[in-house]
Amino acid sequence: SKAGEDDCLLEINKKMAGRVNSFPSDPLNFIHFIVEEVLKLNEDPRVHGVYLHLPPAYITSRVLNTIKPEKDVDGISDLNMGRLVRGDLSKGFVPPIASAVLDLLEKHDSALEGKTVLLVGGEGPLGVSLQCLIERSGMVALKGNWSSKSLQRQVMQADAVVLLGAGNMDLPPTWIRPGAAVICCEPTLETDEQAIEMSSKSGLGYLTAAYRTQNVVGSCSRWLQEQQYRPWHLHSLKLQPMTPLHLRDIVHIEISRAQTPKPVDQLAEEIGLLPEELEAYGRSKAKVRLSLLDRLHKQPDGKYVLVAGITPTPLGEGKSTVTIGLVQALSAHLKLNSFACLRQPSQGPTFGVKGGAAGGGYAQVIPMEEFNLHLTGDIHAITAANNLVAAAIDARMLHEATQSDKALFNRLVPSVNGVRRFSPIQISRLCRLGINKIDPASLTPQEVSTFVRLDLDPSKITWQRVVDTNDRFLRKITVGQASTEKGQIRETGFDIAVASEIMAILALADSLVDMKNRLARMVVGTSRSGQPVTAEDLGVSGALAVLMKDAIKPTLMQTLEGTPVFVHAGPFANIAHGNSSVLADKLALKLVGCDGFVVTEAGFGADIGMEKFFNIKCRASGLRPNVVVLVATVRALKMHGGGPNVSAGAPLPKEYIDENLSLVAGGCRSNLRKQIQIAQLFGVPVVVALNVFKTDTQAEIDLVCEIAKECGASNAVPCHHWSQGGRGSLELAQAVNEAASRPSHFKFLYNIEMPIVEKIRTIAQQVYGADDIELSPEAKAKIDYYNQQGYGSLPICMAKTHLSLSHMPDKKGVPTGFVLPIRDVRASIGAGFIFPLVGTMSTMPGLPTRPCFYDIDLDPVTEEITGLF
Amino acid sequence: SKAGEDDCLLEINKKMAGRVNSFPSDPLNFIHFIVEEVLKLNEDPRVHGVYLHLPPAYITSRVLNTIKPEKDVDGISDLNMGRLVRGDLSKGFVPPIASAVLDLLEKHDSALEGKTVLLVGGEGPLGVSLQCLIERSGMVALKGNWSSKSLQRQVMQADAVVLLGAGNMDLPPTWIRPGAAVICCEPTLETDEQAIEMSSKSGLGYLTAAYRTQNVVGSCSRWLQEQQYRPWHLHSLKLQPMTPLHLRDIVHIEISRAQTPKPVDQLAEEIGLLPEELEAYGRSKAKVRLSLLDRLHKQPDGKYVLVAGITPTPLGEGKSTVTIGLVQALSAHLKLNSFACLRQPSQGPTFGVKGGAAGGGYAQVIPMEEFNLHLTGDIHAITAANNLVAAAIDARMLHEATQSDKALFNRLVPSVNGVRRFSPIQISRLCRLGINKIDPASLTPQEVSTFVRLDLDPSKITWQRVVDTNDRFLRKITVGQASTEKGQIRETGFDIAVASEIMAILALADSLVDMKNRLARMVVGTSRSGQPVTAEDLGVSGALAVLMKDAIKPTLMQTLEGTPVFVHAGPFANIAHGNSSVLADKLALKLVGCDGFVVTEAGFGADIGMEKFFNIKCRASGLRPNVVVLVATVRALKMHGGGPNVSAGAPLPKEYIDENLSLVAGGCRSNLRKQIQIAQLFGVPVVVALNVFKTDTQAEIDLVCEIAKECGASNAVPCHHWSQGGRGSLELAQAVNEAASRPSHFKFLYNIEMPIVEKIRTIAQQVYGADDIELSPEAKAKIDYYNQQGYGSLPICMAKTHLSLSHMPDKKGVPTGFVLPIRDVRASIGAGFIFPLVGTMSTMPGLPTRPCFYDIDLDPVTEEITGLF
Repeated sequence: SKAGEDDCLLEINKKMAGRVNSFPSDPLNFIHFIVEEVLKLNEDPRVHGVYLHLPPAYITSRVLNTIKPEKDVDGISDLNMGRLVRGDLSKGFVPPIASAVLDLLEKHDSALEGKTVLLVGGEGPLGVSLQCLIERSGMVALKGNWSSKSLQRQVMQADAVVLLGAGNMDLPPTWIRPGAAVICCEPTLETDEQAIEMSSKSGLGYLTAAYRTQNVVGSCSRWLQEQQYRPWHLHSLKLQPMTPLHLRDIVHIEISRAQTPKPVDQLAEEIGLLPEELEAYGRSKAKVRLSLLDRLHKQPDGKYVLVAGITPTPLGEGKSTVTIGLVQALSAHLKLNSFACLRQPSQGPTFGVKGGAAGGGYAQVIPMEEFNLHLTGDIHAITAANNLVAAAIDARMLHEATQSDKALFNRLVPSVNGVRRFSPIQISRLCRLGINKIDPASLTPQEVSTFVRLDLDPSKITWQRVVDTNDRFLRKITVGQASTEKGQIRETGFDIAVASEIMAILALADSLVDMKNRLARMVVGTSRSGQPVTAEDLGVSGALAVLMKDAIKPTLMQTLEGTPVFVHAGPFANIAHGNSSVLADKLALKLVGCDGFVVTEAGFGADIGMEKFFNIKCRASGLRPNVVVLVATVRALKMHGGGPNVSAGAPLPKEYIDENLSLVAGGCRSNLRKQIQIAQLFGVPVVVALNVFKTDTQAEIDLVCEIAKECGASNAVPCHHWSQGGRGSLELAQAVNEAASRPSHFKFLYNIEMPIVEKIRTIAQQVYGADDIELSPEAKAKIDYYNQQGYGSLPICMAKTHLSLSHMPDKKGVPTGFVLPIRDVRASIGAGFIFPLVGTMSTMPGLPTRPCFYDIDLDPVTEEITGLF
Repeated sequence: SKAGEDDCLLEINKKMAGRVNSFPSDPLNFIHFIVEEVLKLNEDPRVHGVYLHLPPAYITSRVLNTIKPEKDVDGISDLNMGRLVRGDLSKGFVPPIASAVLDLLEKHDSALEGKTVLLVGGEGPLGVSLQCLIERSGMVALKGNWSSKSLQRQVMQADAVVLLGAGNMDLPPTWIRPGAAVICCEPTLETDEQAIEMSSKSGLGYLTAAYRTQNVVGSCSRWLQEQQYRPWHLHSLKLQPMTPLHLRDIVHIEISRAQTPKPVDQLAEEIGLLPEELEAYGRSKAKVRLSLLDRLHKQPDGKYVLVAGITPTPLGEGKSTVTIGLVQALSAHLKLNSFACLRQPSQGPTFGVKGGAAGGGYAQVIPMEEFNLHLTGDIHAITAANNLVAAAIDARMLHEATQSDKALFNRLVPSVNGVRRFSPIQISRLCRLGINKIDPASLTPQEVSTFVRLDLDPSKITWQRVVDTNDRFLRKITVGQASTEKGQIRETGFDIAVASEIMAILALADSLVDMKNRLARMVVGTSRSGQPVTAEDLGVSGALAVLMKDAIKPTLMQTLEGTPVFVHAGPFANIAHGNSSVLADKLALKLVGCDGFVVTEAGFGADIGMEKFFNIKCRASGLRPNVVVLVATVRALKMHGGGPNVSAGAPLPKEYIDENLSLVAGGCRSNLRKQIQIAQLFGVPVVVALNVFKTDTQAEIDLVCEIAKECGASNAVPCHHWSQGGRGSLELAQAVNEAASRPSHFKFLYNIEMPIVEKIRTIAQQVYGADDIELSPEAKAKIDYYNQQGYGSLPICMAKTHLSLSHMPDKKGVPTGFVLPIRDVRASIGAGFIFPLVGTMSTMPGLPTRPCFYDIDLDPVTEEITGLF
């Protein structure tokens, strides 16, 4: 790295020296050029020192102050001069020539204290900096002037004389007191070599060059030190308490609005990101570049914590708030580096029934409206990419249906300026087809036909269109009914955007290369001869990668207490794998460093989100979790213990408001125990986090914690993050910290090489507690087809209701004695999993009679948003 | 404003003083608090001066340097200290106490030159700054030390003595030379009042306070000066020539990539934007806040130039490149402030046939991939908003079809904690229905029914869904075919996203308030009783405003030569109004100031884009253009002169490659003459810009310019921006500058109060040259209905082919003797226009056999994109 820097330094000098002659008559243009070059050097992370050798006319205030102070090794920028004057040497640089003079003074006389040094002619910054250094060394600095009458007397009295910027003037030798030092110190504008020669009479040139090099080395060391792992200097935000007693009536967005988020570039700096690794999107969001992984690849990972839950009520049990409260406690209170990795919410539910997903109360991601709306456009990019594939499929089928092989070939491989060439994406297809030719003219008619016809079977297209809106009328549609589509109608449908295979790829890819390969591999349907047809066959995979190039970078935001959060990939662990991204987790694990924590969240109950986290996501990432936090609420436990139905919108039955220990105990001994056992199947310690509501009694809270520990949890603690923020989750943070120090014996639930049916059966029996599985004829046929295509050794991503351990949403607690029906099986080859559908699962939510959007509004004057939650 | 500042200054002191007592035991916390408060003051544009009165323990380096140097009126930050030392007083501030000391010295003795001033005890920054000032006044500054034996001798020799930070130490009066001044100068940590009292013996306290106030006033003046109109200090980027000789073979994206864009915040500063008015999206794009309009409302507008074209070939004639070349010439070469306002391209054509819209050659917006892909998400936001309306329509019809009035009412106005309330959006609907009640319980059953039932007629829904993909199979579809939608199937379709009424609203709104009102007014269909149903009736208009809150801010980018560009709203002037936004133009007109230029672009030929620009956009904005630039190419002129067909993808016939003066003359005397006349209908001077291709001969170029001037153009010039950038458009820039100084007699083509049919006929006859119009029965019925609903006085937005002045795409030149068929008429009530469909116009493009996406690719290692154009 050192050699690299020297090269750079050298290069600049050469470049500038080389240009001096080409711009002699146009100084303004040359200053432009200098400024532009300096700006590039400022941004270049390989350069740690910039200094200029220029004629005085070019050393304008603008030029001087363009140099980044961290790289201004000559200490000439205003900021560094000010630092020197004020005496703060921890950041700036001492001008090398001043260091050199001091050094010569010391060499001349080791007892400097109280000696008098006369500076002659030093009005400029060099004089000032020398004077500061001389006085700080305990000497007395006096100033003399060439034109002053008293100069001779001053010189004769001084212990040392420093002549500054005096051109060729010299002192008469007779003036100088015997034994006094005279240092002639003129800043030179020549190259280093010449400078050294010119001031070699005092050795100052060499010394200056040496001190400058020392400053470069110092700058480099400072930079290296900043790269090292360290506890963050996180400026945590104080909570602004509103009305703590009746908190549940407070609107989340008001709490969010009451807090001013730190500028995202400040947060980034606090957690050790370099400016060039950040792409701000407004003031409170930024994408983080993946180059960070290269820079920190030697840094050990932090501890890895998964937050999962028991089987929830339809109201949700607060996994996101627990996750956020936990990192607020770890970072802002225990001062342990920690990161939350969350999923970007779908705008469908935000405007539908459920609302947003930024957490709630005093455990939120802020600003919550930024989190819940477009964010940095990842889901929009997925929608665009997904629908480009869909448009390509139908258009291709139309063109194949209406053109001859020759016409198709002429259009697909057109003659441009008389030359006909395959594009790279077409050469890939030819390779897959076993046609190893690169000259289009050399293909036989049969090969032309094989190449140009994907011959998609319209009844076997598996690719659906998507929108990020709860649009139930698009569940099943007929397309192609306009006369321009020549009768090529077919039935298809739209899914919610986050259910797109491209979302799963975004979550599971571990690099841009990996994402691009996965996108190319996606199978969109089957040809009439039974061959899978991929996105690359459609010629669209390069465009997909281009559309997704920014989406692959996780988005940095912050919690209400100013601790960092990554938002990346999407929800819906029932119909998708529903975990946040591998890349966000990996980046976060590097940023927190070995003593830090990354808390990531798996959707819905541990039977769904956590099972997929372990068997799919950990397999893809190679990461191993240290602790599972299992979230429970008294409300959900009462439901599993036999309480009445809970549904969104309807008032809660009184069982959920009054103390009822027997219902609580019933829920603990059924669903909670089973979910703990599921986590233990994977060999990871479990901490139960009871998300406390204001209606919960102390006896209920104590009972849950007691039974949870009986059932095998390492620990079980109540959490009050909702009403108190991180402070309310301190007990959980300590429990997690303690559990993370225990050995974890992680293992997968199934071997990837087991037959598909056996993998499904293992999950059904061991996780869900089913007696067995039952495959529909369609499911059987699909599995046979996938085996034949070589997809047999992919992991399984079950599409199952989240409202029960079984496939029956109304069976609470621990259902037994059921056979799990597998209605159909799909394959997401790009994402890399087999996708069995358990019972009827809708992949497109609907809007209720009164959706959330009724209450969502924007004050066009204050720009305040109301009604988001 | 001045009063406001003082209030602020006062407030801070109080706030801090008030807090001192509450944090006595926790200095770190208090420093946090100070830093946070200072950061807020830094950002507050009403505050121009920040100074601190704090005990020394709190004046840490961090605290000092948190103050923004522009507001550091005590001159204590390192940067300002450095500026003082280096002698640059144009930016920083002289510490008020130092100014006060100098003032006293001057008062004591008006002949300062050569006098000796002894500074006793001044090791800190105050000593340094005093010394600098004293020496710059021509005096000799000496330093003394309280503990030095020679102090007495020094004092006795000095003309003046300044005692620095010495606590209670005093000099024996006998030491002081008769007539010498002694100034006792101790920085105080008390409030101003106390400070003044304490140092009142020398008057220093009052003076210091006065100089501090002077600094605040100075800071405020500097700020005000920066707000004034001024020629920009634009740092233009040098073009990096690649292979100028064979330019047409160069790939645009390579030219784009060869240029390093300025950081967008630098560009913003250069054109006079304040940091708080900018929201960066990555490094090269930023949204600009509308608050700018308030700040600059007194600034006169710049000159307003519209770029339109003759009727184009399907290949396009380069209006965007002309626009960009023109601003490059104006800004980077003539040094006139100028802005280009462009439309965001649709991703449909980017991946379809036409490619992107960033310009080309050496007249481009960079980085072109950012411009052509998601940009800052405006079109995605429009898509999300449009489709939320669509989902709301179908879901509402389903719920109304399956529920009683009572059930609907209970769900729409639910009881929350026992209270039932209408939401604001529901009260608006009640008002429109004439039900002036706010207690839900007071509605009669009939009123309940009227309120809850929109009673939409499924056959009269005019709202379509949209995607930003060329997906021809969505042109006509049947939705609602899943069993969950209970048989509520209906036929509908998708449009390309930029054709959404919400895009038109974005382009025409002149504030957030206006946009929100327009969104609420959008009519989505008709009830069975014939009443229009609006987005507000659906309860969705607040959510739409929330989804669009960022989209309303224009996006700032730059040209290849580093000049500013706004990108806002969308293309497709054939099926939409296809002009860039009113807001972008208004912001740009303020930013360029009175001598500057804003160049905005209208889609396709002048008969479409320009006619809509004048009659719709100028009516909405109140802005009046100064010049029209009419773009022509030899290629299109030859086509209009009788040349063979031109089509995308096919090789050009030889007529277009070889010189052919008679075809050129034919095109000039037909289409070009007519388009010039159309512009003259509106009373605006026309400059013809001939976009020169490498195949054009000098004789052809001369002929076009000659005939154009004969036909009434103020001027006609060739442009070489494609191969030379701004330098190649200098002649055009001068012609535009000259034409803009002429009087413009702008007038609308039709009076808005004319009947709808007459307005359509006026456009058809005067602009298109039709003999008359012919309305289908459907069109007639619609016009009657719109008149009855009171929509009669809206302007007209024709949907007509762009490939001919007539409705017949193959009729080139100036077609005559035709009757314009009006197949249907629609109304965009939110956007505010009536929308006649001329012949068959598709609102959804399709993909060809080999779409652009075949060549688009991303290198996953270098992250370079290829194939975009």
